[in-house]
Amino acid sequence: MAGDKVTLLGFWGSPFALRVKWALKLKGVDYEYIEEDLSNKSPLLLLYNPVHKKVPVLVHNSNPVAESLVIIEYIDEVWKGNPLLPLDPHERAKARFWAKFADEKCMGVIIRTFLTEGEEKDKVVKEARENLKSLEGALEGKKFFGGETIGYLEIAAGWIRPWTQIVEEIAGVKVMDAETMPLLNTWFDNFLQVPAVKECIPPRDKLREHLKGLYVLWRGSST
Amino acid sequence: MAGDKVTLLGFWGSPFALRVKWALKLKGVDYEYIEEDLSNKSPLLLLYNPVHKKVPVLVHNSNPVAESLVIIEYIDEVWKGNPLLPLDPHERAKARFWAKFADEKCMGVIIRTFLTEGEEKDKVVKEARENLKSLEGALEGKKFFGGETIGYLEIAAGWIRPWTQIVEEIAGVKVMDAETMPLLNTWFDNFLQVPAVKECIPPRDKLREHLKGLYVLWRGSST
Repeated sequence: MAGDKVTLLGFWGSPFALRVKWALKLKGVDYEYIEEDLSNKSPLLLLYNPVHKKVPVLVHNSNPVAESLVIIEYIDEVWKGNPLLPLDPHERAKARFWAKFADEKCMGVIIRTFLTEGEEKDKVVKEARENLKSLEGALEGKKFFGGETIGYLEIAAGWIRPWTQIVEEIAGVKVMDAETMPLLNTWFDNFLQVPAVKECIPPRDKLREHLKGLYVLWRGSST
Repeated sequence: MAGDKVTLLGFWGSPFALRVKWALKLKGVDYEYIEEDLSNKSPLLLLYNPVHKKVPVLVHNSNPVAESLVIIEYIDEVWKGNPLLPLDPHERAKARFWAKFADEKCMGVIIRTFLTEGEEKDKVVKEARENLKSLEGALEGKKFFGGETIGYLEIAAGWIRPWTQIVEEIAGVKVMDAETMPLLNTWFDNFLQVPAVKECIPPRDKLREHLKGLYVLWRGSST
């Protein structure tokens, strides 16, 4: 909407900030981007997200919205063109269900491969694979979850593949593959190859360095 | 809507099923209630929530919806009278933010008093109190979060008080009190004293027995 002031407080390596970048891009919303130094958070971030003090925060005409999935719903309600959530209530519920599933059951368990060894690590990998297979089942072979256009679930879960591929390299595990998860693989391809989507993803080498740093830090503190 | 078939699969002691009961009651939706035996889950539950195999599940004209907050949004979108979420997008985002906060930052930490002792327990109690104070800040002294009528946040978080009061008794802690959290206390009163809300809450003695059983079970398995 003309005259709107939209600002995103983010961090380049945050998949949650990436979700919001994708949503704004797909909606065609112009915005100012402010990169946060998470080791020295800005007064703006502390002002606008005093509860969690975390990115992303979307500030729309001075109104702050925090929590990435909440922000995506907000964006979808304010800028109505190019709907992200399906219009049918049952389809909307399914999209929300799977976004929650991806948050709670996919990435966390993949990241746990950083913190485990031996049998425990094998168990984590098995669980991660089972959960990704569940997510694949939800796609039913469709191009996108909602059908022919990118929507809420792609924005919520699309980052899982680029992050996972690097986690796999660092932790020396394999949780996703095209052979056993062909539909999931094609679904990620369909989304991640879209130029507007691709251009928001951080450079792979830089992201690898960042995740390697987290790996070293967490392993250090978990021993 | 006339001719609709609405079924709720629940468990009497589940606060998540209670949320759905409240939402249906406040919307005036007639429904069939099926009590699940969680130690011997029904084929219906496994059919309708194959991913989590958990209550609550709402089945509306054969379409299942799982995850209590997702169900509440579904109910609000299908039965439009008596809106639960505010109409303004920023207010909706705030309600969703605080419901997520209550889920992630309030009840889990209160339940952790079951599993801790000594200094660790003191730390957990302190964290629980701080988080409840944050939630109180969101209320800004209003009767209900949305103003004059019960809405999404009351349904999402209203169960915290009856459950917490029993957890406090069993664990021998005090995390909520009217003196230091007067606005939160009044907010719970405003909601929990409404007859339609009150009549859905399980009997206190029965709930106490149930939570005591969990306490014994968890302490047994955590030592």
